[in-house]
Amino acid sequence: MSLREDALKMHQEKQGKLEVNAKVEVKNAKDLSLAYSPGVAEPCKVIHEEPETVYDYTMKGNMVGVVTNGTAVLGLGNIGAAASLPVMEGKAILFKSFAGVDAFPIALDTTDPDKVVETVKLLASGFGGINLEDIAAPQCFEIEERLKQQLDIPVFHDDQHGTAIVTVAGLLNALKIVNKEWKDIKVVLNGAGAAGIAITKLLYSYGVTNMIMCDTKGAIYAGRPEGMNKVKESVAAYTNVNKEAGSLADVIKDADVFIGVSVAGALTSEMVATMSKDAIIFAMANPVPEITPDEAKSAGAAVVGTGRSDFPNQVNNVLAFPGIFRGALDVRATDINEEMKQAAVGAIADLIMESELNPDYVIPSPFDPRVAPAVAAAVAKAAMETNVARITVDPQQVQDKTAELTSIGG
Amino acid sequence: MSLREDALKMHQEKQGKLEVNAKVEVKNAKDLSLAYSPGVAEPCKVIHEEPETVYDYTMKGNMVGVVTNGTAVLGLGNIGAAASLPVMEGKAILFKSFAGVDAFPIALDTTDPDKVVETVKLLASGFGGINLEDIAAPQCFEIEERLKQQLDIPVFHDDQHGTAIVTVAGLLNALKIVNKEWKDIKVVLNGAGAAGIAITKLLYSYGVTNMIMCDTKGAIYAGRPEGMNKVKESVAAYTNVNKEAGSLADVIKDADVFIGVSVAGALTSEMVATMSKDAIIFAMANPVPEITPDEAKSAGAAVVGTGRSDFPNQVNNVLAFPGIFRGALDVRATDINEEMKQAAVGAIADLIMESELNPDYVIPSPFDPRVAPAVAAAVAKAAMETNVARITVDPQQVQDKTAELTSIGG
Repeated sequence: MSLREDALKMHQEKQGKLEVNAKVEVKNAKDLSLAYSPGVAEPCKVIHEEPETVYDYTMKGNMVGVVTNGTAVLGLGNIGAAASLPVMEGKAILFKSFAGVDAFPIALDTTDPDKVVETVKLLASGFGGINLEDIAAPQCFEIEERLKQQLDIPVFHDDQHGTAIVTVAGLLNALKIVNKEWKDIKVVLNGAGAAGIAITKLLYSYGVTNMIMCDTKGAIYAGRPEGMNKVKESVAAYTNVNKEAGSLADVIKDADVFIGVSVAGALTSEMVATMSKDAIIFAMANPVPEITPDEAKSAGAAVVGTGRSDFPNQVNNVLAFPGIFRGALDVRATDINEEMKQAAVGAIADLIMESELNPDYVIPSPFDPRVAPAVAAAVAKAAMETNVARITVDPQQVQDKTAELTSIGG
Repeated sequence: MSLREDALKMHQEKQGKLEVNAKVEVKNAKDLSLAYSPGVAEPCKVIHEEPETVYDYTMKGNMVGVVTNGTAVLGLGNIGAAASLPVMEGKAILFKSFAGVDAFPIALDTTDPDKVVETVKLLASGFGGINLEDIAAPQCFEIEERLKQQLDIPVFHDDQHGTAIVTVAGLLNALKIVNKEWKDIKVVLNGAGAAGIAITKLLYSYGVTNMIMCDTKGAIYAGRPEGMNKVKESVAAYTNVNKEAGSLADVIKDADVFIGVSVAGALTSEMVATMSKDAIIFAMANPVPEITPDEAKSAGAAVVGTGRSDFPNQVNNVLAFPGIFRGALDVRATDINEEMKQAAVGAIADLIMESELNPDYVIPSPFDPRVAPAVAAAVAKAAMETNVARITVDPQQVQDKTAELTSIGG
């Protein structure tokens, strides 16, 4: 059978991929009197009196809401809430399989950012964190920003930050191979969507100042007369300081790093040939990258990553989000802040020892069972150090527990 | 340990009672390519083209949203969304344990009915049905009514209809014992909350016309000068046709049936003594009934039911909602209508054979594993007969499948 037939069959066989189960048995009147009436009134009363105990007595502390409005589902565009459900269920089972995080899809039938924000605020009580998913840019930025301000639980737009974290982790290792430093490199990004913007921000936090982002109209710079919006203006404020105009082919000259979150074929061999020696290329257009690894290497690239599992150095968000939320939940975090994202970058990159590092191995495999535990521990530690943790835990215990909860591999 | 300590310990041990699990494994790249990218795009595309297939490829067809705003939680009142979570999780595990229905709590942090309606509409895509729970009267009536009109999936306020269905099932059997008919009986209900109103409506659909409902101000009648609202006026339109005024003690004279959904001690032995011969009493105030079974019987009552598990004839909603939603989901129903509720009444009542019927056994045990399968089959059949079913199924298969899914007893 084809992938299409296999995938449809798998989704139909059990009517989707997700189920809700009881962690406690209800077989008789005694069970019922504890799990339901009258015993259930006791935790209700305690939570009403001491709101923080909701983490002790309910599902909240291990539950993430996977929230979408179906406006940017995979590469399929705005297919709506119902049609997004297979992806959201898929995301939820990855949370569980990789890091023991319970996650539940909330697919909202609206394209209005105000309604998304309002709805998530109203239903946030039952969740220890919110993972935003497949929401179109630029609305996704506003939605995330407002929710982060208004909620006391972590809000994380995975299409932005998950991709950014894994890309930067790969780049961190690639730089070791080519022996270059963050502060010295010139980075050109192609694609001004959610992922591109987030990668730019994260690179900036690592001290990269020589960056140019391109969209379909070419290099973005402050005050560009056309095709700008609030978000691109904010990127322009800290990138492309010389206000270079021109096409991707123009600005990529002498770049050390190309990061593509755009479309198939956007990067040519000719362009790669104009880059610096030992160029690093992350070509993450899906399913067909901006340039194939073979072409890129033939044109002189030293390290190449893509979004695909059949090439080396796959940038796969699953390396980040399960461990990040695991760590955030374990300290009952109020936020996932920049320090926690950087901790995740470091944890992912450091899993590959210097002796193992090579151009085809700068990013761990998505199914390396060490990843989520390492990320969770690093994120929990960073949360405690930056005072967004409600409780104190031992990072080693977080790591060990996550390793037990991981059901991949093995 | 006390019930309080046991209940708190049980809720804390596993951080709540509910978890979300994968129905399919994700252990390696092959699994990932089917359950997630790129394979997951296939069901997304099909659903986008043919919206009804969302039932085939996603969790929707077996998933109920347990929606509350925490305004009337158990007897605790308006304790808010977060503090309601233990009850909502409890409800969800009853759905699963009794009838294999996946259910997930949605606790909304608002007392505004408009916001509840709007929010549920926005998130309904992922659910095959909505169970409203612990929402205060009279807002609960408006919320249910509007959602029923606007959604194409069943909406069911269990505090109303679950209680009504089980009460009427018990009454149906009690009438057999005392050899009285629906059309001849006089019913007095005490308590004009969600359950009381729903019981009145359901009794009316069985042909009971001689009914008087009382609230804290006494008998309700059309145009009563004080303490009325829209909902009570609508009840007054088909009850108390002689516009009798007075207290419960006044109007209960010669009644055949008393139904209490009010407060402890509301019914006295003296009042019971003024009722008809072979009076039937359902005294469902929790945890202490309007009158104890012993008192009621001493005063001449023939059949007595309560809400308590330590007395005979327990009116427990768990006899109704799991099977009702099981049946509704199995035919992908667009509604739970009056005929489906009556089918549930009949199925519950008929489980007790005439030869087994006696004053202490007019309602099956909550843990009788035959109940949910029988209810599910009857409800599915009624849905098909009244054209609210999207698909046709064999009721016997619904019954057999539900019996397999039930994990209580045994």
